[in-house]
Amino acid sequence: MAVNLHIPSQSDIHPVAGIEIGTAQAGIRKAGRKDLTVFRLAEGTSVAGVFTTNRFRAAPVQVCERHLAAGQGIRALVVNTGNANAGTGEPGMLAARQTCDALATLLGIRPEQVLPFSTGVILEPLPVDRITAALPAAVGDLQPGNWFDAAYGIMTTDTQPKIASQRITLGEHTVTITGISKGAGMIRPNMATMLGFLATDAGIAPGLLETLTREIAGRSFNRITVDGDTSTNDSFIIMASGASGVHVQNRDDPHFATLAQALGEAALELAQKIVRDAEGATKFITVQVDEAASSQEALKVAYAIAHSPLVKTAFYASDPNLGRILCAVGYAGIADLDVSGMRMWLGDTLVASNGGRDPGYTEEDGQRIMKESEITVRIALGRGSVSETVYTCDFSHEYVSINADYRS
Amino acid sequence: MAVNLHIPSQSDIHPVAGIEIGTAQAGIRKAGRKDLTVFRLAEGTSVAGVFTTNRFRAAPVQVCERHLAAGQGIRALVVNTGNANAGTGEPGMLAARQTCDALATLLGIRPEQVLPFSTGVILEPLPVDRITAALPAAVGDLQPGNWFDAAYGIMTTDTQPKIASQRITLGEHTVTITGISKGAGMIRPNMATMLGFLATDAGIAPGLLETLTREIAGRSFNRITVDGDTSTNDSFIIMASGASGVHVQNRDDPHFATLAQALGEAALELAQKIVRDAEGATKFITVQVDEAASSQEALKVAYAIAHSPLVKTAFYASDPNLGRILCAVGYAGIADLDVSGMRMWLGDTLVASNGGRDPGYTEEDGQRIMKESEITVRIALGRGSVSETVYTCDFSHEYVSINADYRS
Repeated sequence: MAVNLHIPSQSDIHPVAGIEIGTAQAGIRKAGRKDLTVFRLAEGTSVAGVFTTNRFRAAPVQVCERHLAAGQGIRALVVNTGNANAGTGEPGMLAARQTCDALATLLGIRPEQVLPFSTGVILEPLPVDRITAALPAAVGDLQPGNWFDAAYGIMTTDTQPKIASQRITLGEHTVTITGISKGAGMIRPNMATMLGFLATDAGIAPGLLETLTREIAGRSFNRITVDGDTSTNDSFIIMASGASGVHVQNRDDPHFATLAQALGEAALELAQKIVRDAEGATKFITVQVDEAASSQEALKVAYAIAHSPLVKTAFYASDPNLGRILCAVGYAGIADLDVSGMRMWLGDTLVASNGGRDPGYTEEDGQRIMKESEITVRIALGRGSVSETVYTCDFSHEYVSINADYRS
Repeated sequence: MAVNLHIPSQSDIHPVAGIEIGTAQAGIRKAGRKDLTVFRLAEGTSVAGVFTTNRFRAAPVQVCERHLAAGQGIRALVVNTGNANAGTGEPGMLAARQTCDALATLLGIRPEQVLPFSTGVILEPLPVDRITAALPAAVGDLQPGNWFDAAYGIMTTDTQPKIASQRITLGEHTVTITGISKGAGMIRPNMATMLGFLATDAGIAPGLLETLTREIAGRSFNRITVDGDTSTNDSFIIMASGASGVHVQNRDDPHFATLAQALGEAALELAQKIVRDAEGATKFITVQVDEAASSQEALKVAYAIAHSPLVKTAFYASDPNLGRILCAVGYAGIADLDVSGMRMWLGDTLVASNGGRDPGYTEEDGQRIMKESEITVRIALGRGSVSETVYTCDFSHEYVSINADYRS
């Protein structure tokens, strides 16, 4: 079902020097699939992360935040699918710590140097014994070329692996950026997405990486929504090993802008791939709001449109029932919005102006555009000069089927 | 598909002295159905209304507000279905005024004494000629016993008419309360619902009626949601003719409390009937949030649960995937929520406590309750003593079908 989701060939996935990956079958929820992934990071790799704002933060998210704050130097990540270890109280915290302990022992590092991640069903105990039993196999599998296995290894209801990889030249050095993400439902990240891991062999000073990770999340994973549900486990991590020989210390570094842009593009590609593979999605929708007085009000309008079940089912049906979009703009929460100053475009076609249907708009134009698989809705609010863009998908029978069946 | 929606028999619908109703076929969108309804109100009837907060307020909503503010004494209502006359700019305002002019001429009253209402598709011109052509037939049909015809006459995607009627005794007088409502999708009223009309032959002083209408809307139509979409046309009206001989001037009147409670019950019944007949609904869900620090935070939590597509599809599947509810509580926007102090019940069964699954909860209990057609989710936040209750429904394949097909 995925909408124009490009899966690169194995030869286009560039390993990142300083980062090794191993996967294993732990049988956490279902047998016979790789559901456990380990990353080993070279000494000196700087790591930063942003995490969900959901108050039911999963146990692994809480452990990640503590271990990042401990400043011991992160040397490994461990990711399980099949169980979110969220809504699991103190036993869940213990299970996350046991996972870190076991991996630390195997790798000869300290538990505070391990970041744990979980994704899957909420409110069920994590079968930590199965994870610790499978960790030796995952560690035995560690090698730089395993990115594809990892992209498969972290999937839940995803139908496709999500992976982005590119090489850029910085002065005399070639720098690699490769990352993976997962997520298809419970997607309206608010700090980061379900799981996103981005690695580079450029070195980035820890404080700078932390700020940069927030900025990049704000323009990528924090601008997508499938169903408006902010998950308990959202985590987005950037790892910078420095193995390429490039080291960026601050924003004045001549390589900073190019590197930051390339990392941002990779994050946006991974975030958009989550929308392209969203549960039941048949269309990829870009909602762009221009001429807002503030970023906050632009986002209010964009999310009101992107979350409206009526708008999303109209896209699914390829029905230019565009009054539903107008309605969503109206209830987005801008109390003093003057609707007569607003304009709306579908693709390049002006649909609404002066508080009503534009005289030049024809139903035929609307129908033609609604049949496409990639559609842009653009709203100009006529209130200022701020723009924001949000990415979402349509709402289909398949979404209901997937979410009525999941877990059963 | 409606969930336990009681349709009273004709003999249980009590006409309201001072209120006459007539319907007609205007062919506004489809031929062969009654799509035009007129109410004539006896002189001296006090009328109050609350309307949508959507910034794309439909033309008839804007005209209603002006005519109520004009204080000329409202003598008639005119309701069309098939077209919302919203997102129609200045031509839409003209069409609403033409409708009022035509009815005023027929009834020998002033246009400012008419309130117009429209419901149906947004962003399409209102065929006002068809309405004015059919008005004489509706006026010719005026009589007190036509409430059922009106309940059918205002339907759009509704599958059932929504009507509530009761008689109460106030001292030596018998007072009648009868009302109708419509709506099945684009339902998350924010002042009132799509359309609700409640009439009594008690007299209520205009200022008091205005306050009372707001209070009643706040506990009934403003506490339901189907899909989170606040319509452009939401309108809720209370008419008090005084023909019973009872006249309530202020809150100290001995009859005030009984009358206000009876009106509130009728409004809640009409509001709940909209949820019971919601597009595709198979279950009626009550979300009760207790122990909140404020009404605002209780409602944030209740609506986060009631709007989550993941929660709603789990109800549809009768799957006790209750981690989704916990997740919604977590992202509801209470920044300092301590999840360890929260408890969650499904029906009478305690599901979650201390930040995780309660030790006494069993999957069997969850499955048993999820199979029922009326389910209560109760959350105790452990932060205060404020409670709020919101009514909603599940999210089914049928919802997608209805909204992917509507208009086509």
